[in-house]
Amino acid sequence: MSGIKVAVAQLNPTVGDLAGNREAIVAAIAQAKAQACDLVVFPELAITGYPPEDLLNKEGFVTQAEATLDDIALAATGICVSVGAVVRAERAGLSSSARDARDESMTKPAALANVAAVLRDGTIEQLIAKQLLPNYAVFDEQRWFVPGAAPSALVSVGEFHLGVVVCEDLWSTNGPVNALSHQGADVIVSINASPFARGQQGRREAIALARLRETGAAIVYVNQVGGQDELVFDGGSFVMDFSESVTARARSFETQLLTTVLSREMSDRSDSYSEAPGDLESVYQALVLGTRDYLKKNGFTKARIGLSGGVDSAIVATIAADAIGANNVRCIAMPSRYSSDHSMSDAEDLAGRLGVSLETIAIEPAHVAYESMLGAALGAAPSGLTDENLQSRLRGVILMGMSNATGAIVLTTGNKSEMATGYSTLYGDSAGGFAVIKDVPKTLVYDLCRYRNERAVLEGLVPPIPQEVIDKPPSAELRPDQKDEDSLPPYELLDPILAAYVEFDHTAPELVALGHDPVLVERVVNLVDTAEYKRRQMPPGVRITSKAFGKDRRMPITNRYRPRITR
Amino acid sequence: MSGIKVAVAQLNPTVGDLAGNREAIVAAIAQAKAQACDLVVFPELAITGYPPEDLLNKEGFVTQAEATLDDIALAATGICVSVGAVVRAERAGLSSSARDARDESMTKPAALANVAAVLRDGTIEQLIAKQLLPNYAVFDEQRWFVPGAAPSALVSVGEFHLGVVVCEDLWSTNGPVNALSHQGADVIVSINASPFARGQQGRREAIALARLRETGAAIVYVNQVGGQDELVFDGGSFVMDFSESVTARARSFETQLLTTVLSREMSDRSDSYSEAPGDLESVYQALVLGTRDYLKKNGFTKARIGLSGGVDSAIVATIAADAIGANNVRCIAMPSRYSSDHSMSDAEDLAGRLGVSLETIAIEPAHVAYESMLGAALGAAPSGLTDENLQSRLRGVILMGMSNATGAIVLTTGNKSEMATGYSTLYGDSAGGFAVIKDVPKTLVYDLCRYRNERAVLEGLVPPIPQEVIDKPPSAELRPDQKDEDSLPPYELLDPILAAYVEFDHTAPELVALGHDPVLVERVVNLVDTAEYKRRQMPPGVRITSKAFGKDRRMPITNRYRPRITR
Repeated sequence: MSGIKVAVAQLNPTVGDLAGNREAIVAAIAQAKAQACDLVVFPELAITGYPPEDLLNKEGFVTQAEATLDDIALAATGICVSVGAVVRAERAGLSSSARDARDESMTKPAALANVAAVLRDGTIEQLIAKQLLPNYAVFDEQRWFVPGAAPSALVSVGEFHLGVVVCEDLWSTNGPVNALSHQGADVIVSINASPFARGQQGRREAIALARLRETGAAIVYVNQVGGQDELVFDGGSFVMDFSESVTARARSFETQLLTTVLSREMSDRSDSYSEAPGDLESVYQALVLGTRDYLKKNGFTKARIGLSGGVDSAIVATIAADAIGANNVRCIAMPSRYSSDHSMSDAEDLAGRLGVSLETIAIEPAHVAYESMLGAALGAAPSGLTDENLQSRLRGVILMGMSNATGAIVLTTGNKSEMATGYSTLYGDSAGGFAVIKDVPKTLVYDLCRYRNERAVLEGLVPPIPQEVIDKPPSAELRPDQKDEDSLPPYELLDPILAAYVEFDHTAPELVALGHDPVLVERVVNLVDTAEYKRRQMPPGVRITSKAFGKDRRMPITNRYRPRITR
Repeated sequence: MSGIKVAVAQLNPTVGDLAGNREAIVAAIAQAKAQACDLVVFPELAITGYPPEDLLNKEGFVTQAEATLDDIALAATGICVSVGAVVRAERAGLSSSARDARDESMTKPAALANVAAVLRDGTIEQLIAKQLLPNYAVFDEQRWFVPGAAPSALVSVGEFHLGVVVCEDLWSTNGPVNALSHQGADVIVSINASPFARGQQGRREAIALARLRETGAAIVYVNQVGGQDELVFDGGSFVMDFSESVTARARSFETQLLTTVLSREMSDRSDSYSEAPGDLESVYQALVLGTRDYLKKNGFTKARIGLSGGVDSAIVATIAADAIGANNVRCIAMPSRYSSDHSMSDAEDLAGRLGVSLETIAIEPAHVAYESMLGAALGAAPSGLTDENLQSRLRGVILMGMSNATGAIVLTTGNKSEMATGYSTLYGDSAGGFAVIKDVPKTLVYDLCRYRNERAVLEGLVPPIPQEVIDKPPSAELRPDQKDEDSLPPYELLDPILAAYVEFDHTAPELVALGHDPVLVERVVNLVDTAEYKRRQMPPGVRITSKAFGKDRRMPITNRYRPRITR
């Protein structure tokens, strides 16, 4: 059988760790050679990790990243390598004048290119710069890079003529891929750093199929894996061959050196074929990997979580136990005078099922102290929202104190519905180092609990989350008999409005035109708009939707846009 | 005397307030007409306010902003108007394909243009799109806009042929201004939303002079004024005439309708000439205006500040009193068992000089409560950093409780040196709504105190900041006899290293090559790098340097770049 043997190196680089990333790349080259591969491909910016952000404004960093590429080229003998790298624009044959020349007073970083470096025979054979630079959503690539021109030559490997593109270049009809096909490319190598969002793997494969049908060229798609601050990269690297089907696919959320033979003949699905995970499975795994990598890459081995007995802290504790091991997770119940008995027993039940430790620190002594301290200044004991926020902050002080004393990171438990509406206390329940489910709407939190419990049943294990936790009505328990629905619409009504407003940018009048209740829309939109200042002070957390709060949605805090709803 | 009468409308728009901004624009048009002006010019994006950020991703917002422009055009009779506006790209004659076409799954906002709309005779005569879109520092314009092409026609007003450009277009040699000059422009109208930074007014006028010398065209430069989240716009609008000198200049940090006659004859400096403020004066005014506008535009009339007796809270209280009036500022002293007597007396002295109220809430009862609550869990009372952070957070709880109960905003008092090195407590001294001096290095805090006191003396008033506050060594007073210098290098050594590292992006080895002490550099760089997670949770504050923390410096939290210093 003719064809070429391809290795797809689905690595997990760490941003800024040039030496560590080089080691992983060089090891994968050696492994691919040991398996007699003709070609090994690495993700976008694999040398620096993605996204390196303003590290790219440091000349010294770019110099060292270029030197690392030169080092790696020395290891590229007996195999063709395509690896994502940053180089100065001139080195990729691009004029740096494409970058706006401005303001002599400012440090003007060098114009850079985001390239696929093709390495062979110990040298750099070609530097192919990314042509389409995404500058929307979480992406800021036009901040650092100048766009590439069409590459002058294809890369010959065995019988094939490879056209190499970087990430976004795959996504355009009549774009770089089509131009490469006109030049004679019969295989497209697409190197990526494509972050996870719900449904994203399906979109990637649909786009690859569209290009394949337009050009007839097979697609080798490599993506990185791992968490980087708010982003999680899910891997899912694949090869789509001339039969228009995915014949090899890496496991999502894991590193893997995927190898496969690419040939003109109809090929069977190889051993290197993993099914893509389902929707809830992928979201859950994204949360686990995002949490694990944030902790690991920032030097944390242990986590602290406040357990309320509610569904949010239950899923966060479960994710944490899956991410770093139950023995590294310590939970704290912090009952107030308003906490119900079932909250405490539910928290104990959960901790027992998960095998995480649980200790209890009642906030009453601090609550009493502050009632008199603030009471003297206010003329009366704190009441209403002031008292509710106070209790929440007294818990934050405990968690952060335990974190300071033990070096464990505090994982916060707020969900996206709360994040959106500001139904949380600054420096209270939102206090901590990583906000695991900040991009997970409340209704999806319930889905994830059920998914995780079902998985346990399938594995013959005890479901981690007590059914009572899932069944009871959500409550912050900051005053007697409080329920979330006293302050918020029911989550089944709230979440669709939030998605339409936050993720799809509809205005209030448009939401009403779409059929949502005007009174509800006005209330929800007002909550979202006035909570912007809170969101700016939230810890980072895993992005799992197509638009998270953070870099994805850059709304001004000071913002008087309040379009009128006509009824 | 020949010439044209020009009105330069240095307005203070509010982002998103389409109706309010329209009103101010229409009123200024009427005022300019009443003064027989031939031309009135408004700042960049005056209709939406600058920067509207992701409001521009809302189709409904853009539609309403376009309708507002149409409304304003109706008022433009008997005078020529140039006003900054956003329109859909096609409306400005631009192809929207310049915007990357990607990913069908994402909401794809319309391609937009950032235009100077030329209005005359009740209609829109021309829409001139910004050609150079800044996408560095705090700017993200390529996120929303497509670049404009060279305008097809000049704008004739009286004897002059006007070339109109938007902000960045002025800053390029051999750029849009030079092209307009070749087309025959003899006056350049430059509409801007140019944020304040130290020395920025001088740079603007130097650039204008450079263009004038290249082209011979006079420059009419209009800038907005006012605070918008972290940015403050200082105005400083000016006219630079054919004699190559500034003949009219608006007052910085104030709204003004500046009028002047522009003619070929040598013109004297008119009544409309204000001196640009000096360096310290401009920084101080930027802090006052940034604070005043953040509060006003977000609906706050009152502020709370924790007074420690130190120099940071002293300058913040002084700025707050200048911004919103002493009677709207309430200070709280929150002594701990480690607070010195002089701290309390210094705080009282300051409050008396400023005329702000001061109340005292000792944190001892809460401190005692937490010692036993945490002590039980930790096996010993909290000590060291845990105890220091605890005290700081106990104060944060008081301030936020007072804020919740009274509706006043908490102003935090951390300076840039602390922000950079992480010498602050998350949810403690950094808890609050606005961080007035977060971009002011400690050494500059002292300069500002001296400046403000000297100004008071010149005005025959009592200097607000007690000399003892300025003279004593800085201390957080979180343990007995603590001094900042126990934890940090002396600020005179620290601040230059921070500026070189943060503002000029030098790496640690480069800092050593520049002559800084290697041991000190290693220590400082490590502090800055490991405090990134804290900075993400800080409140917004006024940007006054050429690189603030925030949108200006987008460093990953997860970042293993630690270049080795060779000694």
